[in-house]
Amino acid sequence: MSEATGGKPNTGGSRRADRLLEVREERRGSRPGDTYIRIVRPYEELFERGDDGELIATERTVLDRPGWTRALRAFRTFLIGRPISSQHEGHERLTKIKALAILSSDNVSSSAYATEEMMRILVLAGIGAISLTMPLTIVICAVLAIVATSYWQTIKAYPDGASSYLVASDNLGYRAGLVAGSALLIDYTLTVAVSISAAVAAITSVVPEMFAWRVAIAVSIVLVLMMGNLRGIRESGTIFMAPTYLYIVTVLVMVGIGLARLATGTMPEYIPPPEWLAAEQGGQALGLLLILRAFSSGAAGLTGVEAVSDGVPAFKPPEWRNARITLVWAAAIFASLFLGISLLASQLGIVPDPNEEQTVLSQVARVVVGDGPYFVTIQVATVLVLALAANTAFADFPRLSSFLARDGFMPRQFAYRGERLAFTTGIIALCGFAALLLVVFEASVTSLIPLYTLGVFLAFTLSQASMVVRWWRRREHGWQRGLAINGLGAVTTGVIALIVVESKFVAGAWMVVIAIPLLVMLMLAIRRHYRNVEHGLALERIPPGGRVDERPIVIVPIARLDEPARRALAFANSVSTDAIAVHVTNDADTADGLRDAWPEWAGEAELVVIESPYRALIGPLLAYLDVIGRREPNRTVLVVLSEFVPRHWWENLLHNQTALRLKLRLFGRPNTIVADVPYRIRA
Amino acid sequence: MSEATGGKPNTGGSRRADRLLEVREERRGSRPGDTYIRIVRPYEELFERGDDGELIATERTVLDRPGWTRALRAFRTFLIGRPISSQHEGHERLTKIKALAILSSDNVSSSAYATEEMMRILVLAGIGAISLTMPLTIVICAVLAIVATSYWQTIKAYPDGASSYLVASDNLGYRAGLVAGSALLIDYTLTVAVSISAAVAAITSVVPEMFAWRVAIAVSIVLVLMMGNLRGIRESGTIFMAPTYLYIVTVLVMVGIGLARLATGTMPEYIPPPEWLAAEQGGQALGLLLILRAFSSGAAGLTGVEAVSDGVPAFKPPEWRNARITLVWAAAIFASLFLGISLLASQLGIVPDPNEEQTVLSQVARVVVGDGPYFVTIQVATVLVLALAANTAFADFPRLSSFLARDGFMPRQFAYRGERLAFTTGIIALCGFAALLLVVFEASVTSLIPLYTLGVFLAFTLSQASMVVRWWRRREHGWQRGLAINGLGAVTTGVIALIVVESKFVAGAWMVVIAIPLLVMLMLAIRRHYRNVEHGLALERIPPGGRVDERPIVIVPIARLDEPARRALAFANSVSTDAIAVHVTNDADTADGLRDAWPEWAGEAELVVIESPYRALIGPLLAYLDVIGRREPNRTVLVVLSEFVPRHWWENLLHNQTALRLKLRLFGRPNTIVADVPYRIRA
Repeated sequence: MSEATGGKPNTGGSRRADRLLEVREERRGSRPGDTYIRIVRPYEELFERGDDGELIATERTVLDRPGWTRALRAFRTFLIGRPISSQHEGHERLTKIKALAILSSDNVSSSAYATEEMMRILVLAGIGAISLTMPLTIVICAVLAIVATSYWQTIKAYPDGASSYLVASDNLGYRAGLVAGSALLIDYTLTVAVSISAAVAAITSVVPEMFAWRVAIAVSIVLVLMMGNLRGIRESGTIFMAPTYLYIVTVLVMVGIGLARLATGTMPEYIPPPEWLAAEQGGQALGLLLILRAFSSGAAGLTGVEAVSDGVPAFKPPEWRNARITLVWAAAIFASLFLGISLLASQLGIVPDPNEEQTVLSQVARVVVGDGPYFVTIQVATVLVLALAANTAFADFPRLSSFLARDGFMPRQFAYRGERLAFTTGIIALCGFAALLLVVFEASVTSLIPLYTLGVFLAFTLSQASMVVRWWRRREHGWQRGLAINGLGAVTTGVIALIVVESKFVAGAWMVVIAIPLLVMLMLAIRRHYRNVEHGLALERIPPGGRVDERPIVIVPIARLDEPARRALAFANSVSTDAIAVHVTNDADTADGLRDAWPEWAGEAELVVIESPYRALIGPLLAYLDVIGRREPNRTVLVVLSEFVPRHWWENLLHNQTALRLKLRLFGRPNTIVADVPYRIRA
Repeated sequence: MSEATGGKPNTGGSRRADRLLEVREERRGSRPGDTYIRIVRPYEELFERGDDGELIATERTVLDRPGWTRALRAFRTFLIGRPISSQHEGHERLTKIKALAILSSDNVSSSAYATEEMMRILVLAGIGAISLTMPLTIVICAVLAIVATSYWQTIKAYPDGASSYLVASDNLGYRAGLVAGSALLIDYTLTVAVSISAAVAAITSVVPEMFAWRVAIAVSIVLVLMMGNLRGIRESGTIFMAPTYLYIVTVLVMVGIGLARLATGTMPEYIPPPEWLAAEQGGQALGLLLILRAFSSGAAGLTGVEAVSDGVPAFKPPEWRNARITLVWAAAIFASLFLGISLLASQLGIVPDPNEEQTVLSQVARVVVGDGPYFVTIQVATVLVLALAANTAFADFPRLSSFLARDGFMPRQFAYRGERLAFTTGIIALCGFAALLLVVFEASVTSLIPLYTLGVFLAFTLSQASMVVRWWRRREHGWQRGLAINGLGAVTTGVIALIVVESKFVAGAWMVVIAIPLLVMLMLAIRRHYRNVEHGLALERIPPGGRVDERPIVIVPIARLDEPARRALAFANSVSTDAIAVHVTNDADTADGLRDAWPEWAGEAELVVIESPYRALIGPLLAYLDVIGRREPNRTVLVVLSEFVPRHWWENLLHNQTALRLKLRLFGRPNTIVADVPYRIRA
């Protein structure tokens, strides 16, 4: 025996495992020092041996299974690749440059649609109202400053990542955490839907012919993202830096060119298509409500500000300091882009396309840099950064669901890592929900925005409020200042959340208002279920183990004397001396034949014939089990069913599915165990 | 012990049954003659005791099952009634009066549409061509005479019933039998579809408003017939005589009135709606093909002539003589009705309604007896006799399928009698096919007729040809005359079958031409399958029984130490000393915990820990079973799965269906038996 089994003498199992696996060394020759020969194990491609004598499954146990799943497996491997061992799970640290690109993509990419969505609301009060775009942009940037400063605080307090769910659970209790968690799940789903819709709008701005296919294109992009994430995309790849920086640089350069042209008076004139103007002679009054609606739409641009604070552990040390620097940079870049685009759009008098075929950003770019390759480059960068933003949701949603599942609030499948180490269930669920939104809202950013903003600001508010509570409780050094900052953040974001509910309720926020409490209730119900199960299964209430049941009474229903019956009986006799064959029939003649042939045929098993004048099989058999059960209520009844396995599925139609029906009926029966003895016809 | 167990000492089973059932008598007092007290059996409501010591299940075993099927059962009992014991299976003998009513309904009711269907073809060559109706009717009546005479022969030769399937199988071999059987199955299905369509036409003739609902009405009638037959309608009920005789009498009286009015010149004038005339100015030439098509349509009226000869065993003795007399009467009555209706329709110059809202018969009746209660009576009688005709198919189709299933040509479910002694599968299948035809052909008699006639005449031909072969082989007294009669019958019906194929091929007969060989091939394939299975299962090739397998190796996959795992292990330990618990994990810590807790917990079972770095559970477990199997290839492996049974179905979503997936994968594994240990959470 090797050292492998020396570790834990109390297991027993490893000894057995060795015996079965024939892992042993044999000594050739009789003196010490003679060669040891390791016996070749014919199955060593299936298992390796671990430290404590346990077996470690190799990749082949997953890949090379025979049977009907082989084709399925081949297809799966083709789509998402070969399984990855848990050993390869690891955390790569990000430089600030990389972190900025990856963590800010959600926030930065919002600048592609934030200006436009404000303008779309303002234009309802007429073209003149568009002049409010710039003031509103400045207000939103002020809010950004407050929110960013708040998260600047949070970063140091939660160096392990400051997801609103964790922070709110930690400080306000798990119910508040669930509200934040639900808001974030909705938010992530909408991040995918809105970003992809905006990406498709950026595409149709260049190629208007594809407008008719926008939903199909959007759903296809989501499917590609799902596939990529199931394969286990490493976000840390340098390739993922490209879209963000390309977008930032191209748009900032365009803004620079635009400002220069404005200053020098060389800006070409913008003439909106007259039918757009006609379509948008909106008769609404420019009241407070409309302005608040426009503000709410623009505030959607702030989504993703929290990403840096969620991702603190991914930074190189000192994590919190690097994260803070990155947060400031991200906010500054977003503000520059947003202000620049809004300024140009206002100055040029851009009118949003009522059909949503052309984006405002593409119109601005067309006027400023002309319809040439630079314009196309901006659009391509926009599509890529928006896709990257959607991709961050494909990391965030599954991770948050795995936290929720780990805490028992979501089905535990969400906590399992798939073969490629990705949270498969969460990824597929996100893809499904996002695709549903895209189909229902026809990939329109404007239709989706009212649903988007509320979840974001609710999560902001809960997170900031948690920080307030935390400062108050801990009274650490500088707590007054921290409390003031986070308090301002909480109040600001809370007020905005209320503004969103108020101004966007009819347009779609009502769905989120309903969905969040429903999700919270569902999550609580799920945890209640798991707790009940836990309570029911827990071993504490159970007498100490090692008990061996009395031998079961074995019942073997047989239809006639054939090979399946013989196999079932042989099995029954092998596990119990109390086997009883039961023959239910409505044909007295065959019953007599069976009885006559029985003694020389059936070994120890006894035969009970039940005549069934109503020709039913299952009812009388169950009744017989009841009788047996009443006689010996504490003994387990083992029902042995021989099941015929046809070579082709359609052949099942030619056989009564009695075994299947019986199994269904027996499944709920107390003290009853069903054993299936499959019988396959040899060709 | 009572006398009940004295019969067959070699069974052993009855002794055991008694012991378990506590059937015993105890003597009170010590002297002979003291009272015996029969122990009260708490389960005697479930079982009675039969002669050979077998148990006889009572109705309660079928009715009073607890669990989720109770509601289903209650609904079923509500729909089709309580189960009927096989003891009540019996044959009632029919008087000639009753037999005529029941067995001739199919044939007699055809007179309601035969005239019309001829006229519909003839009118394609213009209104004048309708004058050919009467000559064609006479030709068809001549054919009827030949067919009836042929069956008159058959009746005596096959006193046990002369279904074409049986007669053809008997004389021409099973392949010819299958052709006849397939033709008859199609024929019976079309009998339902055509009769119900004609019945609905008789309804819409009175209430044209219901025309839009004709398909729904037709399908509803079929469903009612199905339900009635599932309940096990006794055709012999006197109530079933009423429609046939009511129809015969009312129509014959109408024909009498019509002839009298024609003779006395008091017949009101018939003026067809001008738009009908316009619609039917058919441009087709009155060629031979058109006449043959009209003849084929009218020949559909001969369906059901064979019913009397099929039903010989139902007659009172002397069966064959009574059947022959009934056959002659049935043919004579049909001929009178058919000739009478055709004569009146021709004389009145009736034009068929191109919309199929009004039947020709109803138009004739309206003219002859006016639009009053007598007209309605005729229509009601028509509806009823047609429904009765459809109902005979609900007896014939399941009976024929049961013959075919008994011989292995159809799925054996068709041979089982349901709880109400009816052939449930056949009844439901017929209902499904007929409803499909009604929906596809929109309950139009004219559309269905081309499919109908071919099957009928193919079955006639095969039946008559069989008789020819039989006469030739047996050379019994009078064989020359018999052979001549059946030969004439075979040739006549064969020629008509060819005419139908020729003239109706495009209109729909092609479907039957394709369907019959397909059905025959399917039936042969089914029998081949059953034979293969039989061969595979048969005991002859197997060493004599009584063998007891070596104890199985028992594998218990466990996820953690909880109550379900304990129960599974307790069961495993109770049936084998070779139980091995297998824990597949990707978490080394829980594995260590499990291992530490194991010795004081698990009785004789050993523990094998398999680390699964790819997080898969099923693959490594199957691989381990492979390893075990390679070590001891001849021992059975019993896999014990503890399966969690949630209280509500939706709770399944919260648990991985690992047990289910494992079962699916293990089902095809050689030498592997799966035992399910369900575990139900107590509230």
